[in-house]
Amino acid sequence: MIKVGIVGGTGYTGVELLRLLAAHPGVQLVAITSRKEAGMRVADMFPNLRGHVDLAFCDPQQADLTQCDVVFFATPSGVAMQQARELLDAGVRVIDLAADFRIRDVAVWQKWYGMEHACPDLIEQAAYGLPEVYRDQIRTARLVANPGCYPTVVQLGFLPLLKAGLADTDYLIADAKSGVSGAGRKAELPFLFAEAADNFKAYGASGHRHLPEIVQGLSEFAGRSVGLTFVPHLTPLIRGMHATLYARVAEDVDVQALYEAHYADEPFVDVLPAGSHPETRSVRGANTCRITWHRPQRGDTVVILAVIDNLVKGAAGQAVQNMNIMFSEPETAGLNLIGLLP
Amino acid sequence: MIKVGIVGGTGYTGVELLRLLAAHPGVQLVAITSRKEAGMRVADMFPNLRGHVDLAFCDPQQADLTQCDVVFFATPSGVAMQQARELLDAGVRVIDLAADFRIRDVAVWQKWYGMEHACPDLIEQAAYGLPEVYRDQIRTARLVANPGCYPTVVQLGFLPLLKAGLADTDYLIADAKSGVSGAGRKAELPFLFAEAADNFKAYGASGHRHLPEIVQGLSEFAGRSVGLTFVPHLTPLIRGMHATLYARVAEDVDVQALYEAHYADEPFVDVLPAGSHPETRSVRGANTCRITWHRPQRGDTVVILAVIDNLVKGAAGQAVQNMNIMFSEPETAGLNLIGLLP
Amino acid sequence: MIKVGIVGGTGYTGVELLRLLAAHPGVQLVAITSRKEAGMRVADMFPNLRGHVDLAFCDPQQADLTQCDVVFFATPSGVAMQQARELLDAGVRVIDLAADFRIRDVAVWQKWYGMEHACPDLIEQAAYGLPEVYRDQIRTARLVANPGCYPTVVQLGFLPLLKAGLADTDYLIADAKSGVSGAGRKAELPFLFAEAADNFKAYGASGHRHLPEIVQGLSEFAGRSVGLTFVPHLTPLIRGMHATLYARVAEDVDVQALYEAHYADEPFVDVLPAGSHPETRSVRGANTCRITWHRPQRGDTVVILAVIDNLVKGAAGQAVQNMNIMFSEPETAGLNLIGLLP
Amino acid sequence: MIKVGIVGGTGYTGVELLRLLAAHPGVQLVAITSRKEAGMRVADMFPNLRGHVDLAFCDPQQADLTQCDVVFFATPSGVAMQQARELLDAGVRVIDLAADFRIRDVAVWQKWYGMEHACPDLIEQAAYGLPEVYRDQIRTARLVANPGCYPTVVQLGFLPLLKAGLADTDYLIADAKSGVSGAGRKAELPFLFAEAADNFKAYGASGHRHLPEIVQGLSEFAGRSVGLTFVPHLTPLIRGMHATLYARVAEDVDVQALYEAHYADEPFVDVLPAGSHPETRSVRGANTCRITWHRPQRGDTVVILAVIDNLVKGAAGQAVQNMNIMFSEPETAGLNLIGLLP
Repeated sequence: MIKVGIVGGTGYTGVELLRLLAAHPGVQLVAITSRKEAGMRVADMFPNLRGHVDLAFCDPQQADLTQCDVVFFATPSGVAMQQARELLDAGVRVIDLAADFRIRDVAVWQKWYGMEHACPDLIEQAAYGLPEVYRDQIRTARLVANPGCYPTVVQLGFLPLLKAGLADTDYLIADAKSGVSGAGRKAELPFLFAEAADNFKAYGASGHRHLPEIVQGLSEFAGRSVGLTFVPHLTPLIRGMHATLYARVAEDVDVQALYEAHYADEPFVDVLPAGSHPETRSVRGANTCRITWHRPQRGDTVVILAVIDNLVKGAAGQAVQNMNIMFSEPETAGLNLIGLLP
Repeated sequence: MIKVGIVGGTGYTGVELLRLLAAHPGVQLVAITSRKEAGMRVADMFPNLRGHVDLAFCDPQQADLTQCDVVFFATPSGVAMQQARELLDAGVRVIDLAADFRIRDVAVWQKWYGMEHACPDLIEQAAYGLPEVYRDQIRTARLVANPGCYPTVVQLGFLPLLKAGLADTDYLIADAKSGVSGAGRKAELPFLFAEAADNFKAYGASGHRHLPEIVQGLSEFAGRSVGLTFVPHLTPLIRGMHATLYARVAEDVDVQALYEAHYADEPFVDVLPAGSHPETRSVRGANTCRITWHRPQRGDTVVILAVIDNLVKGAAGQAVQNMNIMFSEPETAGLNLIGLLP
Repeated sequence: MIKVGIVGGTGYTGVELLRLLAAHPGVQLVAITSRKEAGMRVADMFPNLRGHVDLAFCDPQQADLTQCDVVFFATPSGVAMQQARELLDAGVRVIDLAADFRIRDVAVWQKWYGMEHACPDLIEQAAYGLPEVYRDQIRTARLVANPGCYPTVVQLGFLPLLKAGLADTDYLIADAKSGVSGAGRKAELPFLFAEAADNFKAYGASGHRHLPEIVQGLSEFAGRSVGLTFVPHLTPLIRGMHATLYARVAEDVDVQALYEAHYADEPFVDVLPAGSHPETRSVRGANTCRITWHRPQRGDTVVILAVIDNLVKGAAGQAVQNMNIMFSEPETAGLNLIGLLP
Repeated sequence: MIKVGIVGGTGYTGVELLRLLAAHPGVQLVAITSRKEAGMRVADMFPNLRGHVDLAFCDPQQADLTQCDVVFFATPSGVAMQQARELLDAGVRVIDLAADFRIRDVAVWQKWYGMEHACPDLIEQAAYGLPEVYRDQIRTARLVANPGCYPTVVQLGFLPLLKAGLADTDYLIADAKSGVSGAGRKAELPFLFAEAADNFKAYGASGHRHLPEIVQGLSEFAGRSVGLTFVPHLTPLIRGMHATLYARVAEDVDVQALYEAHYADEPFVDVLPAGSHPETRSVRGANTCRITWHRPQRGDTVVILAVIDNLVKGAAGQAVQNMNIMFSEPETAGLNLIGLLP
């Protein structure tokens, strides 16, 4: 059994980790910390876990996380970098669901996240936890930077096209739509039901923190620096993320064959039949990314459509997938989830 | 492995049965029929099932359902009564998710369902599939009438109080609220998104088909004919059902102790701490019924609050629970589900 | 032109007052105060008001509200009682949308609202702003206590029955459902989209602040102290409130005739045809209360169904209606609103 | 008073026309036809209209629409072209809210709409009812083709940029999101609440009927044939449409000044401050189009964001605006609507 600790389990990625790990056959939940909620039973905060998770939140100071095999950080950005070294030194492997180790260029990270990085040297050691690209590094990594939700869906959507060198990489567009849980379990006005329901808007159109992470990935796929316009939107879903990706292609490429071949062996990427339109609800609660494509009017623009559940493949599910890889579990262990439809 | 067939799998109870049975360790899905969709792969209609269910719908005429151990009818009321006898005669056990065998008084059934019953003699043989009350009958039944969603939550909510003889049974009130999936996957105007979203209304306040079923159950619990006012409402949830039950109680009964004792051994009924308010989302996708109670201003009215997922404990999940009991599987096999929250 | 000031216009009742007053032909908006947002243009906070309201929030200290004819308090409870006397002494009439002057028994008010009342003597002077009952007092009142949303719909629903002395007043039940805007524009976790969407729950079942206000009103209608069980619920609507009311009636009363007669001259109460089910969306954005009734199985329980928009007839619209009455405007001035459907 | 008739008033554009026309000071509603619902009072179908509209639906055969000054067709495409000539010959002016007269190239129309056009000669006479571009033609037109919802928001969004000749017109992208009411009041499975709620998907990505209409307009603005990729999406809003438009610009143009100047005199186009993100709810129920823009990372891609209410500026409101222009009413008569927020 893998002994697991969770730091900061009171947010949506935290409760989602608990939902997944509680049902994982190879995991023993050892500790979950929260400074603010220490002593409270987890199932009192998240009643869906009643009968499934018996743990109480414990104070970070009291929790002996060094006894764990792996610790997940489901904290805001800036926390894991303060605590990772101690755990790593104790032989504990770390999976950070926040952004501390995602960006390899520290200066870029510091600019977008507005703080100094506490341990730039660890960034180099971190594997970027997108298994479809970096599975080998993840396998042996002591520290994994779990990708952001937008970066996951946008990278998986563009990957085969960019790897094949078929797109005009100066002019990529990612028009992405996220459910409200992506903003986290934070009491802020814009995310109130009466503000976000029956409403649709873009946000961060001039610049969003996930932009440098996506550009870093796409540039690596393409082998050159890409030009990307990324516009995120808030849509009245609880969960769900939809990316509509636009790329100019030169040749008359068989996109369907390209994508099917690229993802043939991937357990969590499902290439739909040509002409489909993936629905976010088809992956609600599941670790799957569903992808399809269109070429309107047979022009030179290819449109890629990709969906994930932002809390699963976009966060907690991918983190568990990474854990499975790191500990030589079957990659699908605990993740054989069927989307909740309707 | 239990060999399972499903008749009429194109509705919401059908896809939910498939979701649950596909993950059930003791089940082999043999056939799913649909006259209209014969030949279509199930996963083409319900993309969440891609990679999990490989079956195609087959024509009812072609399907040899007599090779199954059990057949679920996920059909409108009036279908199972036409086909059950043939299956039963062939030794196949039958679980009807519709209303054909729920009401023991044929005349009452015929009045509320507006058709003649095709096999009144089978009604007597049917066990009413509410395991928390009729587990023994279900165990040996060849034919199980799976309860309606409203009847499930209202009966589980009132059960301990009525069994204990503590309520004024002349004046029971059940104010119930259902998500829209309860209306089924039918293209009808009132259930359009633009009609049902951001809208709340009662319906069937003067009489709803589930009323006689509930009254039959409550009267049996109470040992006398009860007077019930039942008002269902449509609320903009996809899934979820909430019953607010009102009963006058004579004595100063310890409701918490009563309910905890009554449901102590039930795997799918969760009595919350006193003073709680159960949320429908805590059981989203799960087979659990969560119950609590209040006694406002210490008066003589007890308020019971109970929630289920109308498609799980209110339909497909309870049907699988019944199957488990009928075939001596662990009652929770395939049903150890955690509510999807958020 | 009535010169109008608003204290505390940054909440949902504030923006709704602005929407209504901006279109009111007899009103001049003079000032709107907010300590926190002083200097900000109202339309920058509420972009729907761009082009319709040019005011900026001003500091309460700077605003000379004594130049107004009437001041609306769209503040939390406890604010108006601090400031009302000064305005009243200056000859300004006051309409409080919060609870400070609703409860005539100061001790009861202090118990439920958890603070000492700053000016108990003013409570006696206040008219309770439910025009369908207290129109005459409102006409001449200097201070109007605008009713709560639940109290409005529950009182209008029960009024004719209780006035006629037909109900068993020991055992009244009000099962009420509110949209999330009823909680106000406050950044609190339970009202986040990801918490409140696709979810239904009761709250305050053991006691809610609106209970004493409702009991006070119903008791006055009935001419004796009533016994009421009141259970509010949170439902995923932005706006909308639905009351399902249960009363035992002795005789075979013609409820339809009773209600139609009672409300025949009321511009904002619409008695639907017998057998109807009112929808909250039919009054979305409108100042109308729609009411109907059922008598299930011809028993002795009458079910009253009533809907309002909690922000309009349940708050800002009723406040404007009261202002119209106080200033001898046509009662419907600025309020001839059609519900936004769909 | 303008005497108005409506053909086909049982859909969402029909009820919206009624909501707007009932409150229009210069309009007399004369007749509303529906073959299927003849005899039914309009307010029985749409209870929000109770007390505001007294008309009943009448049979198209019986209605003497020739007595009207103007007739709105709120019918599916293909109906107005059958009946327009008779009305026009009788001196009645016609506003078609469907697509019959929007596309000037009959062959293109016939290809996309899959039927033969009944009166190609009338197409030439029709003014395209986008007042911000074609106000002069509308003023004198006998027949107005009211634009589609997507075409309205996409054309208004791109208009100043294309008129100024600043965009690379070979590679325009319109990523558009629509509320579900855009699909009409039709009982079809994909638009059920349980299908469309908490779900997001693209549709028609390979080709949508609004594409040729948009391309026709943009090409006229640009003075040359444009290349457009148009991807519509279904989002869980009742009303609301959001266009995210991408264009490559050569020079360092002052987009803010350009848009503000272009729309300075338009009563229904509101250019937001630079850096804003328009919300669909800010125009809920209003005839306003709100527009803003971004230039991410100061690159050569300009992102235009534009929102409308698909039923108002995208349909019925724009139709009333056109009527006002045609009959020399103030253009804002009956349309001085404030968005319903929250």
